[in-house]
Amino acid sequence: MSLPTTQTLPAVNQRHKKDFGPIATPERLLLGPGPSNAHPTVLNALSRPPIGHLDPLYVDLMAEVQELLRYAWQTDNRLTLPMSGTGSAAMEATIANCVEPGETVLVAVKGYFGNRLKDMADRYGANVKTIEKSWGEAFSLEELEAALISVKPSILAIVHAETSTGVCQPMHGIGDLCRKHNCLLLLDTVTSLGGVPLFIDEWRVDLAYSCSQKGLSCPPGLGPFTMGPRAESKLSQRKGKVPNWYLDVSLLNKYWGSDRVYHHTAPVNMNFGIREALRLLAQEGLENSWERHKINAEKLWSGFESLGLELHVPEELRLPTLTTLRIPKGVDGKAFALHLLNSHGIEIGGGLGDLAGKVWRIGLMGYNSTSENVNKVLNLFETELPRFRGTDS
Amino acid sequence: MSLPTTQTLPAVNQRHKKDFGPIATPERLLLGPGPSNAHPTVLNALSRPPIGHLDPLYVDLMAEVQELLRYAWQTDNRLTLPMSGTGSAAMEATIANCVEPGETVLVAVKGYFGNRLKDMADRYGANVKTIEKSWGEAFSLEELEAALISVKPSILAIVHAETSTGVCQPMHGIGDLCRKHNCLLLLDTVTSLGGVPLFIDEWRVDLAYSCSQKGLSCPPGLGPFTMGPRAESKLSQRKGKVPNWYLDVSLLNKYWGSDRVYHHTAPVNMNFGIREALRLLAQEGLENSWERHKINAEKLWSGFESLGLELHVPEELRLPTLTTLRIPKGVDGKAFALHLLNSHGIEIGGGLGDLAGKVWRIGLMGYNSTSENVNKVLNLFETELPRFRGTDS
Repeated sequence: MSLPTTQTLPAVNQRHKKDFGPIATPERLLLGPGPSNAHPTVLNALSRPPIGHLDPLYVDLMAEVQELLRYAWQTDNRLTLPMSGTGSAAMEATIANCVEPGETVLVAVKGYFGNRLKDMADRYGANVKTIEKSWGEAFSLEELEAALISVKPSILAIVHAETSTGVCQPMHGIGDLCRKHNCLLLLDTVTSLGGVPLFIDEWRVDLAYSCSQKGLSCPPGLGPFTMGPRAESKLSQRKGKVPNWYLDVSLLNKYWGSDRVYHHTAPVNMNFGIREALRLLAQEGLENSWERHKINAEKLWSGFESLGLELHVPEELRLPTLTTLRIPKGVDGKAFALHLLNSHGIEIGGGLGDLAGKVWRIGLMGYNSTSENVNKVLNLFETELPRFRGTDS
Repeated sequence: MSLPTTQTLPAVNQRHKKDFGPIATPERLLLGPGPSNAHPTVLNALSRPPIGHLDPLYVDLMAEVQELLRYAWQTDNRLTLPMSGTGSAAMEATIANCVEPGETVLVAVKGYFGNRLKDMADRYGANVKTIEKSWGEAFSLEELEAALISVKPSILAIVHAETSTGVCQPMHGIGDLCRKHNCLLLLDTVTSLGGVPLFIDEWRVDLAYSCSQKGLSCPPGLGPFTMGPRAESKLSQRKGKVPNWYLDVSLLNKYWGSDRVYHHTAPVNMNFGIREALRLLAQEGLENSWERHKINAEKLWSGFESLGLELHVPEELRLPTLTTLRIPKGVDGKAFALHLLNSHGIEIGGGLGDLAGKVWRIGLMGYNSTSENVNKVLNLFETELPRFRGTDS
């Protein structure tokens, strides 16, 4: 036996021991595609001393978070919980739990995040088929039904609020189509939850995911996830284990369900934050929050149009949470965004994928959807943008 | 085309709209297996207003976190970063990136977390072999070498600090054995990072993971991960894509590396927290932190022995961060722990798996490893435990 009682330890290497000062990040007004600013009381909740993840008081808090998430999502789904990762982890959770190798998944791609769903489904062994629309358009029911008929998928995955384009997919009738053609409906609600009308149960959505840092006014770090009875039944009939341990809902269910069996150490403080964020949303009321987002977005849109700027998405498809504004000819969009960040402390986003270099993305989400912020943005575009004309050929 | 311009929306269902008051969790002294209490300045950092995940200032902060993590882990590994999930996500990242289906993985199981590694490797299609020791023992070099010779694995996975048993695996020579037998060494350092001597490079560890909520004095929510050149080369030679999108280091490398390509929206505030936690560790110095943990643990051990209590692990294998104390005959261990929580605001842990009902687990980690906390625990065991004698048959 060679179990040395005292081991010789090497000397400590000081190469990476840097003498950094305390953190000194500035205040920013985050009006890009997210993260958005967090509500001050959410930040206070975040900084409470942690309690244990199996503490009876934490167990109560988990149930409160679940209940408030059900309200925000308008669902009775038992399996409604925040994944202990960001929105992309929750996105992957929907795929990992409900796709079995060899199954056909139809992804309706009309922007960057449709492509991400495609990549993920492919990694879980799905036979992935897509239908595509230009970045800035939405799908019609006829287009979706034609694809369902020809592809015969087990899951249709579609993005409600496409963060890369600013398009809101009209949802009326899609859930019924999926039942008719015997497939699950998987919905990306990352940029809609809290800010845009969203009805998981009424729309017959079987699987959905979102994030904490947009319509909920919480910092990024949690990925709300919900799974309806049809998806739950598909999960319970899987032939093999879910090929992802961390996101396995059959294990998570034992922790979040009545058994409270330890799975992983929950991100306790992030859950303090989202509980406060969801509480504030319930206090305001969904209808009021949706209306606030709509009014402020409309004010932003008409302001931009008054300045002679062009919106990328036709009005009837526009997201109240995220506006895509075309970069005028001759303007270096990146330089202008950097100027707003460095000289005015305001972050707006650039285009992604097909829209890179073509649009700015301006978010008015959660705590940031205020008339005052709309005025700030419009004033800056009015006074600063002219200086950037002719910066790009 | 049926893209309705105005969609009829259902009425909002108020069933789950609960009128909860603001969050009111109490202060707890967390002396269980983790989470441990966070340092107050870490909590302050957590509650700073978020900035964007592609903000140049955030990009600087990412580099600082990486550099300080390299110091804490004593490694030059380029691919050293906190995964955007808890320690279990980082654990899964080591497996997901470096195991290919059909490969043999040898897991040295001497507690609960060895079994978890086994479950994960199995999900990634590995041919999993195990060697086992009783919960409370460590492996000898001879035992490990015999298994390497007979199993011929591509990866040996072992736990440095077994949180379920309180055992610290002596590491001297294991890395050399793995080179000799041509396999990667994967190390669980969840309960050692920051509190127990740990030398990733000197010990020739190829893959390791940890958590934020123990020796680092930060709340749970991030999973430090590091990958050395041999593991990196294995990753780059994979036949297929990593079967886990969120934890795919080849994608994460483009965000954390010099390209800064968007992968997922980073949990910005948690990274504020861990930067501060790692900064405090560097300020104290690893040698001083390790020494502090050792001194306080030794004081706890001798105090327990003076009270006639029995420690589960032989002294030479004991973790300074986590002590397993045998529950005396006739004491209802669960009732006593609940009493400490409810009447004294102190959390200690119960046993897990094979040790359920047999031990308490008492953590002195990071910010909580103080002489004052040792005194508190010893005083409570002295005054309160006698009242629980005879509560269990």
